[in-house]
Amino acid sequence: MTSIFGNLPTVAYEGPETHNPLAYRWYDKDRVVLGRTMREHLRFTVCYWHSFVMNGSDPFGAPTIMRPWSGRDGLDAARQKADAAFDLFRVLDVPFYSFHDRDVVSEGATFQESVSNLDAIADVLGQKQDETGVHLLWGTANLFSHPRYMAGAATNPDPEVFAYAAATVKHCLDVTRRLGGANYVLWGGREGYETLLNTDLGRELDQMGRFLNLVVEYKHKTGYTGTILIEPKPKEPTKHQYDFDTATVYGFLKRYGLENEVKLNLEANHAQLAGHSFEHEIALASALGILGSLDVNRGDPLIGWDTDQFPNSLPDTALALYYVLKSGGLGNGGLNFDAKIRRQSIDAEDLVHAHVGGIDLCARALLVAAGMIEDGRLARHVEDRYAGWNSARGKALASSMSLEDIARDVAGRSDGPQPKSGRQEYLENLLNSYF
Amino acid sequence: MTSIFGNLPTVAYEGPETHNPLAYRWYDKDRVVLGRTMREHLRFTVCYWHSFVMNGSDPFGAPTIMRPWSGRDGLDAARQKADAAFDLFRVLDVPFYSFHDRDVVSEGATFQESVSNLDAIADVLGQKQDETGVHLLWGTANLFSHPRYMAGAATNPDPEVFAYAAATVKHCLDVTRRLGGANYVLWGGREGYETLLNTDLGRELDQMGRFLNLVVEYKHKTGYTGTILIEPKPKEPTKHQYDFDTATVYGFLKRYGLENEVKLNLEANHAQLAGHSFEHEIALASALGILGSLDVNRGDPLIGWDTDQFPNSLPDTALALYYVLKSGGLGNGGLNFDAKIRRQSIDAEDLVHAHVGGIDLCARALLVAAGMIEDGRLARHVEDRYAGWNSARGKALASSMSLEDIARDVAGRSDGPQPKSGRQEYLENLLNSYF
Amino acid sequence: MTSIFGNLPTVAYEGPETHNPLAYRWYDKDRVVLGRTMREHLRFTVCYWHSFVMNGSDPFGAPTIMRPWSGRDGLDAARQKADAAFDLFRVLDVPFYSFHDRDVVSEGATFQESVSNLDAIADVLGQKQDETGVHLLWGTANLFSHPRYMAGAATNPDPEVFAYAAATVKHCLDVTRRLGGANYVLWGGREGYETLLNTDLGRELDQMGRFLNLVVEYKHKTGYTGTILIEPKPKEPTKHQYDFDTATVYGFLKRYGLENEVKLNLEANHAQLAGHSFEHEIALASALGILGSLDVNRGDPLIGWDTDQFPNSLPDTALALYYVLKSGGLGNGGLNFDAKIRRQSIDAEDLVHAHVGGIDLCARALLVAAGMIEDGRLARHVEDRYAGWNSARGKALASSMSLEDIARDVAGRSDGPQPKSGRQEYLENLLNSYF
Amino acid sequence: MTSIFGNLPTVAYEGPETHNPLAYRWYDKDRVVLGRTMREHLRFTVCYWHSFVMNGSDPFGAPTIMRPWSGRDGLDAARQKADAAFDLFRVLDVPFYSFHDRDVVSEGATFQESVSNLDAIADVLGQKQDETGVHLLWGTANLFSHPRYMAGAATNPDPEVFAYAAATVKHCLDVTRRLGGANYVLWGGREGYETLLNTDLGRELDQMGRFLNLVVEYKHKTGYTGTILIEPKPKEPTKHQYDFDTATVYGFLKRYGLENEVKLNLEANHAQLAGHSFEHEIALASALGILGSLDVNRGDPLIGWDTDQFPNSLPDTALALYYVLKSGGLGNGGLNFDAKIRRQSIDAEDLVHAHVGGIDLCARALLVAAGMIEDGRLARHVEDRYAGWNSARGKALASSMSLEDIARDVAGRSDGPQPKSGRQEYLENLLNSYF
Repeated sequence: MTSIFGNLPTVAYEGPETHNPLAYRWYDKDRVVLGRTMREHLRFTVCYWHSFVMNGSDPFGAPTIMRPWSGRDGLDAARQKADAAFDLFRVLDVPFYSFHDRDVVSEGATFQESVSNLDAIADVLGQKQDETGVHLLWGTANLFSHPRYMAGAATNPDPEVFAYAAATVKHCLDVTRRLGGANYVLWGGREGYETLLNTDLGRELDQMGRFLNLVVEYKHKTGYTGTILIEPKPKEPTKHQYDFDTATVYGFLKRYGLENEVKLNLEANHAQLAGHSFEHEIALASALGILGSLDVNRGDPLIGWDTDQFPNSLPDTALALYYVLKSGGLGNGGLNFDAKIRRQSIDAEDLVHAHVGGIDLCARALLVAAGMIEDGRLARHVEDRYAGWNSARGKALASSMSLEDIARDVAGRSDGPQPKSGRQEYLENLLNSYF
Repeated sequence: MTSIFGNLPTVAYEGPETHNPLAYRWYDKDRVVLGRTMREHLRFTVCYWHSFVMNGSDPFGAPTIMRPWSGRDGLDAARQKADAAFDLFRVLDVPFYSFHDRDVVSEGATFQESVSNLDAIADVLGQKQDETGVHLLWGTANLFSHPRYMAGAATNPDPEVFAYAAATVKHCLDVTRRLGGANYVLWGGREGYETLLNTDLGRELDQMGRFLNLVVEYKHKTGYTGTILIEPKPKEPTKHQYDFDTATVYGFLKRYGLENEVKLNLEANHAQLAGHSFEHEIALASALGILGSLDVNRGDPLIGWDTDQFPNSLPDTALALYYVLKSGGLGNGGLNFDAKIRRQSIDAEDLVHAHVGGIDLCARALLVAAGMIEDGRLARHVEDRYAGWNSARGKALASSMSLEDIARDVAGRSDGPQPKSGRQEYLENLLNSYF
Repeated sequence: MTSIFGNLPTVAYEGPETHNPLAYRWYDKDRVVLGRTMREHLRFTVCYWHSFVMNGSDPFGAPTIMRPWSGRDGLDAARQKADAAFDLFRVLDVPFYSFHDRDVVSEGATFQESVSNLDAIADVLGQKQDETGVHLLWGTANLFSHPRYMAGAATNPDPEVFAYAAATVKHCLDVTRRLGGANYVLWGGREGYETLLNTDLGRELDQMGRFLNLVVEYKHKTGYTGTILIEPKPKEPTKHQYDFDTATVYGFLKRYGLENEVKLNLEANHAQLAGHSFEHEIALASALGILGSLDVNRGDPLIGWDTDQFPNSLPDTALALYYVLKSGGLGNGGLNFDAKIRRQSIDAEDLVHAHVGGIDLCARALLVAAGMIEDGRLARHVEDRYAGWNSARGKALASSMSLEDIARDVAGRSDGPQPKSGRQEYLENLLNSYF
Repeated sequence: MTSIFGNLPTVAYEGPETHNPLAYRWYDKDRVVLGRTMREHLRFTVCYWHSFVMNGSDPFGAPTIMRPWSGRDGLDAARQKADAAFDLFRVLDVPFYSFHDRDVVSEGATFQESVSNLDAIADVLGQKQDETGVHLLWGTANLFSHPRYMAGAATNPDPEVFAYAAATVKHCLDVTRRLGGANYVLWGGREGYETLLNTDLGRELDQMGRFLNLVVEYKHKTGYTGTILIEPKPKEPTKHQYDFDTATVYGFLKRYGLENEVKLNLEANHAQLAGHSFEHEIALASALGILGSLDVNRGDPLIGWDTDQFPNSLPDTALALYYVLKSGGLGNGGLNFDAKIRRQSIDAEDLVHAHVGGIDLCARALLVAAGMIEDGRLARHVEDRYAGWNSARGKALASSMSLEDIARDVAGRSDGPQPKSGRQEYLENLLNSYF
């Protein structure tokens, strides 16, 4: 049977000079970079929702992207979708995939039927994983699409919705563990508010803290060793989402005693919506010890909503990966293409082009980032800039002196400190020389 | 001698019907609202920098606002400025003022001279306080205008700048204590970065944590009972400021063990630049127990920089004060007009109009907010919405049940929770009926 | 039979003191303001799409709002929808409604069937108009929801889509004329681009100019006397929409010789997305002679997409109406509630509350705006500011002098012009005194 | 005498492999690309104001960048500044420079003195031009820094300010003509408003139209053959600037009959502030026939003010130059570095690094853009997409058929048009393959 991808061959590495649009120009999976293969560094992941659920609709228009399973519920459609998904994984030669429970099979009429649906398709997915060697980077539960969640899941004013969401996460976590998922993600869907007028902010934060503690306790009880991840986003669908950004989630984790239990899944487009660069979010999560995994996509800086486009900026992606490499890599995490083709990209081949371009961009960015690490000039410049803090004087200021000691000392000097150039333009030129 | 305010009489309350632009239409200082006078609730504060230092210049233009002390340094100019300041306090009949060290007198050629200048003008200010009964809401040190701070103060790569800033804060805190200041504020001036390329984010955060701990230790040592306040701002002057918003500062305080020592001075315009409403920042700080004081001003929602305009939206200000009242008031804090007249408002009288308008707006907003509290419908609507959490079932979900307990329970039910209307439009109409 | 509005009585004027949420506090339809009744000034219009088509779905969630006709196509559902619509018009006592062709009845399988569907429901609507006295403010064709329009209608790369859209507009214009519609609107749906990489900008602008000329020619040929309106929007659904804002559409009309043929339907939320205030767009359209009608809604200044919320800011709406009154009113136009209830507002009554609030707000804003006109201080201040241009000298500068004359004159003077205060804060206080 | 650039040698081309930060890696001035040398294509221009006037101050801080002429007025300082400027032109080996009148010499106490100052320094500049072969790309008058212009120049409520501005422009245009300037630029400084409350929008637009007509008439009278350019900007310093963007200025030119007389000087950062990409503004100006010259700089997409940073994004700059090449080049125009070094870049060498990086980036971008033109795949894809419009059918739709003809034709067909993929991801990958 012909798949929707027209029996395309597996995309292969052909080098930078090829004009074949369905070849890799930079992703040479077994090439060793800084001691690991590109495949091990990048852990590319195709996500189910954008690639196999998204239909091109938007708030002003009907679906444009039609697949054989479009508009059909139930296990037959789910199996057909899984066939196509694993065929795409084969075409792209990627090692990982990710899903929400509702992506892989439709919700049932009752909770029990939903559980049963998910268990059945999990058997299919597990078998396909075994056959192909493709692994699950993470699973997650969709706690935002169904009307019951319109006012949030963990933060719902109705405790029965909290309970329903908790039961759903328990089962999705069970399935993720069964399929060997390396992580389990909680994206704060509609955990936020539309208007403060009907909202008790403090109470909702406590509910969310309670929910996350339930999940962490259960993880330990079952012996699951994957990482629990939270995915920050500042707004959309709600006006204000509680998991605004890295700094906000860090404070939340500290408040509820979870800073050693939970890490972050950071997304480029969400960073932008929060007013940050992607590299800022990565560098900050790294400094705070909570860097987990990445959703590599991009927003449009002139657009105020989540466009979830495939990454295509080499400078931006190289900087992001530079901070990942400086942080020692992503561990359990990976690079998940949380990105969707455009409404007008209605051919199945568009989905392949999109991923090939994204994979190649990240591979090329890895080479640039590794070059920056190996060259070392950038890092040395930063170290030199702070060198004074490693002197005896710097160490005393940072630890033993009191405010009065310091004031006495400053008052005893005849001159103040002299400004030194920050050399931003030189460093930007240096950065450009790595491309 | 005629002051720059042309010997204007003190602005008096004349009621809503007056056409006198230099009368209060709503601010009736001794009127009792919810058990306290308007004066006690609102604690209006005129800030020195915008009112007596700002000269109308902008990045594209030279100063337009000329005062007798413009362009002059030293104590004579400082005394002249103080005369005008206390004359404005008299005209407006406000109980508080606030300053940076460099606002009240120019910096000296050396650290010692700067200390001496500030001590001398503090004597003048103290005497004027005694004579007029005007109090100091807060003092703060300007750690951002001088070139030495171009790369930050506490977060500077050069430890000598850290030391200089620390010594400066010690002295400014001493002066603030001496003048009976109710609070001491740290605004993160240039504590942030222009480019990550030359920045060690983790190290700079540690430096900032160290700095703040030094200040808190010194405060306790000296027995000062005022509140230490941090003022969040997401960007400007730097590309990224570390004290981004309420949630970010909360995480920072938790990280460095300061969440019970430091509160927040929240500004409306800074909230907007961070992507939040002012009432969000207030409600969140209240929920986290760190609400301290307010800078009442406004930004322009179509403008991406800090415009620091005088507040003029009754709906926005009433909502802000509603959450303040719900939080039990501001305690040591107050309403500081961190707002400047426009470049074209070159007459001294413009400064009076600006404050009269701001004071009157806040007074009217207080009446609206108090009406909302007294009416109670809004608060009851919120309580009712979460009522399920007060049931035995709700309490069990919030405390004793495990994830497995909950899942077992949900699986045993035949139907899921039903969505209920959020009634946003009804509540928005209700809100409008209070105006 | 009970309508979805539960046989609610018609909302009546009860005055500002009422606590009845389903009464008008300010809208007293026969009250005369500046020589016309409130009903004549405001020409309130309920729009079909948001009120009877919108189902609460968003990019992250399934529909939440269920009506008896939800999910059903064809004429039976259309008649049921029309019954509910006219029942809402009765409840609200509004004089106008507006629609897209696809709102009032579903599209057919062929062009001919779509035409036939629309003709059939137009008969129903016409009869209801006759029975109730409700009029059609405007009709418009939906040229953006169907997949055939995914790359634009008039600006599509495929001329057959252009033709299909043109034929559709012809029929919708015929129906609008038949129903006595006061205006015909073209909203630029997907007339824009997603990426310049696949777009010929100049060609698409010419196509759009051609399309609009076809419509105007046909209007004249048929003797239709309604106004053709374009509705500016800068982005969404496309990345860049050609009808960006008032100034852009003005240039487009001039380029294609249409500036005396077409006016603008301005929307508050679209103005904000383009970086403008609503009053700016109104004042500019008025100055350029192309002010037509208004979509009264609001966006959220912290949100980057079209939220289409019901208006609820008295200051914003009063300013908008002040510039409408200064422009001599809207003529054929009206105030169309292009606004939708929130995803969580799932009860039919929410739709009533939303409109009652919007109507009352605009009515109150009209009273404020009329008060500003009658008082005259604001307008006089502006006139005085420019008074110099009415002097002989001012008139010479504006008409007869050459650049050399002016330069010779300036060189002969001994001093330059002196700046005068812009008095912004005084004027803002004055504005607030009208509320 | 040692210049502030420490007698640096002229920067030379050394090729992509060099590690010398003060060499060109891509700018090989005599290399022929698409039939012209890089020097002829790019016409690099150093601007006086950012490079020799800007002192690192910002709204929160004092100057940080000190030059020998800092803080000094008069002709001696002006000559010293000109020496440094032409030394930088030598170091960079650039063919053009640009200035405002007030950049090259300080304003005098009277109009006459200002004229005399400018004439005197123009003699110096003319001599240096002759000696070095460096040319003037454009001159312009600063009509925004002095307090007299705080409410605008041409659009000032006071006709005497209009006259003063007109006389100033006449003289600056004379000087520009005398120095052989290829263009004369009008940037709308403060032509806009702070608040509509004190503004007569229509009158101010007429004043601006009158002003521009005066300038164009004078240009023709004097036989000056340079191009008059307007530089769009949407906001900053004013809340709303009349020259918002390309489309707005086009409408303005049409309104005042100037569309064949005036072209645009487009700036990347201004485009972004208006919500557009730089390539959009270029492609639109090209389609409208008013593309003149470019200010190559960049903003920060996360920052809402004009950061005027040196360009450093190869993808962005290459796309901009692709549309320039498609438009046939810039003619009289050039690439002006309207960009300033950062506040912390206090060494003179930072200014050299900044320009070297910008020049090299643009040179590399030109090679990429030329490669795109030569390859032709992108352009062919666009042509093919619109091919239907070249058929007889397409031409009839575009010219001869009436709306009724088209409707009759569509009604006679049995099926509608079929959507085709927009292939955005494929094209984005193709674009990336050119880098």
